Amino acid sequence: MNKHKVTFLPDQKEVEVDEGTTLFEAAEEVGVYLNSLCGGEGVCGKCRVQITTGNVTVDKNSIAFFTKEEIQKGYVLACQTRVKDNLEVVIPPESRLEEEQILAGPRLEAQKTWTETSPIAYSKSDWICLHRRPSDPACLFEPLVRKVYLELPEPSIEDNIPDSGRITRELEKKIKYPSVEAPLPCLQGLSIRLRRHEWKITATVARHNNIGRILQIEGGDTADKNYGVAVDVGTTTVVAQLVNLKTGQVIGVQGNHNLQAHFGEDVLSRIAFVCGKGSLDVLQKAVIENINTLIQTSAQEKSINVEDITSVVAAGNTTMSHLLLGLMPCSIRDDPYVPTVDLYPQVLANGVGININPHGVLQVMPSVASYVGGDTVAGVLACDLANRPETTCLIDIGTNGEIVIGNNEWMLSCSASAGPAFEGGDTKCGMRAIRGAIQRVEINNGRVVYETIGKAKPRGICGSGFIDLIYELARNKILDIDGKFKTSVQDKRIIEGDGELEYVVAFPEETETGQALVVAQTDIDNIMRSKAAVFAAIKCLIDYAGLTFDQLERIYVAGGFGSYLNVDKAIGIGLLPDIPKERVEFVGNSSLMGARMALISVHAFEEAASIAQGITNIELSAFAPFGEEYMAALYLPHINREFLFPSVNY
Amino acid sequence: MNKHKVTFLPDQKEVEVDEGTTLFEAAEEVGVYLNSLCGGEGVCGKCRVQITTGNVTVDKNSIAFFTKEEIQKGYVLACQTRVKDNLEVVIPPESRLEEEQILAGPRLEAQKTWTETSPIAYSKSDWICLHRRPSDPACLFEPLVRKVYLELPEPSIEDNIPDSGRITRELEKKIKYPSVEAPLPCLQGLSIRLRRHEWKITATVARHNNIGRILQIEGGDTADKNYGVAVDVGTTTVVAQLVNLKTGQVIGVQGNHNLQAHFGEDVLSRIAFVCGKGSLDVLQKAVIENINTLIQTSAQEKSINVEDITSVVAAGNTTMSHLLLGLMPCSIRDDPYVPTVDLYPQVLANGVGININPHGVLQVMPSVASYVGGDTVAGVLACDLANRPETTCLIDIGTNGEIVIGNNEWMLSCSASAGPAFEGGDTKCGMRAIRGAIQRVEINNGRVVYETIGKAKPRGICGSGFIDLIYELARNKILDIDGKFKTSVQDKRIIEGDGELEYVVAFPEETETGQALVVAQTDIDNIMRSKAAVFAAIKCLIDYAGLTFDQLERIYVAGGFGSYLNVDKAIGIGLLPDIPKERVEFVGNSSLMGARMALISVHAFEEAASIAQGITNIELSAFAPFGEEYMAALYLPHINREFLFPSVNY
Repeated sequence: MNKHKVTFLPDQKEVEVDEGTTLFEAAEEVGVYLNSLCGGEGVCGKCRVQITTGNVTVDKNSIAFFTKEEIQKGYVLACQTRVKDNLEVVIPPESRLEEEQILAGPRLEAQKTWTETSPIAYSKSDWICLHRRPSDPACLFEPLVRKVYLELPEPSIEDNIPDSGRITRELEKKIKYPSVEAPLPCLQGLSIRLRRHEWKITATVARHNNIGRILQIEGGDTADKNYGVAVDVGTTTVVAQLVNLKTGQVIGVQGNHNLQAHFGEDVLSRIAFVCGKGSLDVLQKAVIENINTLIQTSAQEKSINVEDITSVVAAGNTTMSHLLLGLMPCSIRDDPYVPTVDLYPQVLANGVGININPHGVLQVMPSVASYVGGDTVAGVLACDLANRPETTCLIDIGTNGEIVIGNNEWMLSCSASAGPAFEGGDTKCGMRAIRGAIQRVEINNGRVVYETIGKAKPRGICGSGFIDLIYELARNKILDIDGKFKTSVQDKRIIEGDGELEYVVAFPEETETGQALVVAQTDIDNIMRSKAAVFAAIKCLIDYAGLTFDQLERIYVAGGFGSYLNVDKAIGIGLLPDIPKERVEFVGNSSLMGARMALISVHAFEEAASIAQGITNIELSAFAPFGEEYMAALYLPHINREFLFPSVNY
Repeated sequence: MNKHKVTFLPDQKEVEVDEGTTLFEAAEEVGVYLNSLCGGEGVCGKCRVQITTGNVTVDKNSIAFFTKEEIQKGYVLACQTRVKDNLEVVIPPESRLEEEQILAGPRLEAQKTWTETSPIAYSKSDWICLHRRPSDPACLFEPLVRKVYLELPEPSIEDNIPDSGRITRELEKKIKYPSVEAPLPCLQGLSIRLRRHEWKITATVARHNNIGRILQIEGGDTADKNYGVAVDVGTTTVVAQLVNLKTGQVIGVQGNHNLQAHFGEDVLSRIAFVCGKGSLDVLQKAVIENINTLIQTSAQEKSINVEDITSVVAAGNTTMSHLLLGLMPCSIRDDPYVPTVDLYPQVLANGVGININPHGVLQVMPSVASYVGGDTVAGVLACDLANRPETTCLIDIGTNGEIVIGNNEWMLSCSASAGPAFEGGDTKCGMRAIRGAIQRVEINNGRVVYETIGKAKPRGICGSGFIDLIYELARNKILDIDGKFKTSVQDKRIIEGDGELEYVVAFPEETETGQALVVAQTDIDNIMRSKAAVFAAIKCLIDYAGLTFDQLERIYVAGGFGSYLNVDKAIGIGLLPDIPKERVEFVGNSSLMGARMALISVHAFEEAASIAQGITNIELSAFAPFGEEYMAALYLPHINREFLFPSVNY
């Protein structure tokens, strides 16, 4: 039988397989794990890959999953495609089943539309955006910190300008900056270094406020060794992507729990710690330790010297950003909710304790207000809200729910305290969206079908699992309109535990821990409050703008629910407004996406700064209608179901 | 008899004197010493003062010393003016007899013209230039570092922009910067400070590259406490002026010997030290110690806290500037004479060890080339060469002689090694131009008349004294055309000492030390070489430009000769070209003047940067005609006397 070599990109993993093997099998053989919900039946459309070289046998039915353009580009479903040639196969990030995916990857409910709108993907080319217009400056590959190799002409008596001018003159032939600065530390010792390396050097240049700042001059050509880190500094989780700044490629991703959690679960309790008995320093050091661990682990994994990491872009809510930079957060908490700064200065990363190149920089994404932070701005950047004539909406659901509505002429934001339920907190069996978390649930006639992340034995329930669960419990008439277990229902899964009713999702024998996984009445109450706060916030913003929901061309949903969100069910419980589901797109960790965009394109960062300045924030605490809207939303799906949720039909 | 109170400004010294007392006497009584060469005869015109309040009796003859405009402004000669009212009298800096004056002050030979052209003077108003056009940006009083008191509106829920934005918004109402940056250190702790001081704060703002950078935010109103230091970092002498940046006034001046002299007398030997066995660090620390001593002494003298000093502007030659900033100077010395940088970055003064406010900045004046430094650029700034349509020339005579010729369309520079003779070095009885130095000499029929600085007993001879002396020796036919003592001359003052002939200027009984003050043949040889190098350099530049000397509308002479330079005699020995003496102006320490201009006007600093970039430097070492010109100038006044020095008639 014929053998063929299949190379999977971007990992460059190669495998030789028999002709007729599916790409899905070939990938598994070499340790590349693809997404799949259907087990290779060609039904879920999750295992999309792109053939860039060679011929394959494609199952024609799978064509339905792709647009014409995608088919021309070579997109196929891995499980429905058989090898008949030596191949190069690109695995798009959304198709990879990895920790990265779980923590960081964008996900979609509406398969048919995602390619048209997925806001960003990696690319080895100069383009960082697959779906923005190429002319869009934010898509230009021009990392925040670049390394440029220069061969300088030797000075002569006719051309004896200063060393720094010689470098600048040559640099400007390669990069166009309005001006270039060389700070003192990179001038000290420069004359010796230039001559020792015979005028062949590599300049590391950061851009900020339209000025190119030379961070470092190395002898010889080190331009290939330039890495950056995009960090999503979440209140609960910190996620970092290691990016090759020569190519724009993401080469590693790591996540860990925010160590600040020792000093308070949420933003308010951490502010209370800092401004009460605790200290700012302790919290700053905690999150710096998070970041250093992530950077070190990623770098070690890829055998990269941390000295070759020249830049970090961090996106976080306003409190996280303040704590990261050592800025007092106390006034964020108190009316009238004033942060110290919104456009954070670019600083020496070492200066705040981040262990990368000693001249490397840290840029924190700009924020809008005390409760609409750089994570939201990064999301707006990633989802391209600010450039479109049509009005769209970003809903980022974490411990706080941040909402942005707008278009290329105006943008409004607000924030509501949602609590940690959707991220697995405040619930008996909740967990983060990692391997073993139940992410999908269906209940039919008392039979529960669930699916876990990584197909592992269940260990807990993540946000998307809870949404499904509440929906299914409501649809099956197990929950009342006010989210309470109906005492009338007879079901072996409804048990009495800890003085309240619980619903058993997985029995002890099914789980990894041997303990039942349940959702208790208190859990449901918490989720009800969370979803009510988020919906009320959206409603207030829409009302404030004088719009109706059907005027939203698209809703992007970001958050740590998991790698999956069932939009129908999220609408069904009254979390999301009742608009056609094809207009709703789940974008996962849009904060990390935006941070990565800013890392690899200064133009994207500049867009972020103008986004942050362009958004008008509405303080819900001072917005009278919010309380009423919140009360009205504490029902399944809403007290005004007829008018606001006409399509919900359980 | 009537008594009147006389207040001398800027010192605010007050004295009560009888009606009819001269202002000169009144000033002496209260310890304000005025310049005078004629002993109060109303002849020298040195004791110019300005009456701003009150009536006086003026001797009409003294009017000849002033322009109409000056008379309207109240200028008088102190020795010819009698008190008849309570008075306020402003002592212009050029009239003060102080250490400052000796080291730093501008001086003039041609009394009739100086007021029209004296390039800069202090002022308490917004104008720092008396004689530039007020519309000239370099005259705008806008210190490099300003302190601005702000009363911020308290935030409310309707106006809850970040603290930094609140400051910037208010700041921009008071200062127009294209943009304002707040670096991290001044944001840390800001939120607490603002609230503790009830939104009343003082922002310290530095400007660089068109960006306003907030250095510090203090609680309350500290805007009155803002001082800066202008430093002339000479190879031999370091001079610092302490300036009140609220008013622009100079409030103190101090000078000391450059401690680097331990490691080499001149620039080349110091470079050899650094690039040979020595270390850069040692030389950097030495000059920093100089500066720190000067700053501390000045501050103590005026009871000023060094923390209130927010900026230092330093002008020095390129090597001094490099050593000050810790930049390796080795390539300055070697063909093709390449410095590391010409536009020095603005740095934290503390960062290089200068003890002022921890957030204060150090700005080094930009340089042109390895041997045309920031001191020369400062001089060009002070003398306003770059804005005039007519061609003028600056000759700065120190250990090197730097020449700049040009106008508002082009500028050329060059540099020649002059040796330290004109600064009192390399000579038996030479000394710096300080109290006790012989600064003027006349010889008539074997009788020597001299004058010392401060009218003290003579201790040595300074540069201007040597110029007079050589001229007088030549005029009295004691020296030959090649600068050698004529053996035929019989004079009791010509003695044999140390194996060569010496001329006794002051006998032991006349001097402070009890030792004779002499000029030896070797001293004269050194001065001959110095003056030949300087003249040859001027000649080369004029030839290069395709001009003749009479096309120079004006020649500014700067240098450490003393507070006085006899232009006729400087022409007479062939140091300066033979042009009408009213076109020659002695401007003293123009380096310090330019540094002070840059300190009190960012526009002046920006002009300096454009001057540095706009000058074309000619390397004399690679300019073939220089050697021949030098040989031709080793005569008194020149081998080509007839053609080049027709007016010299001894």
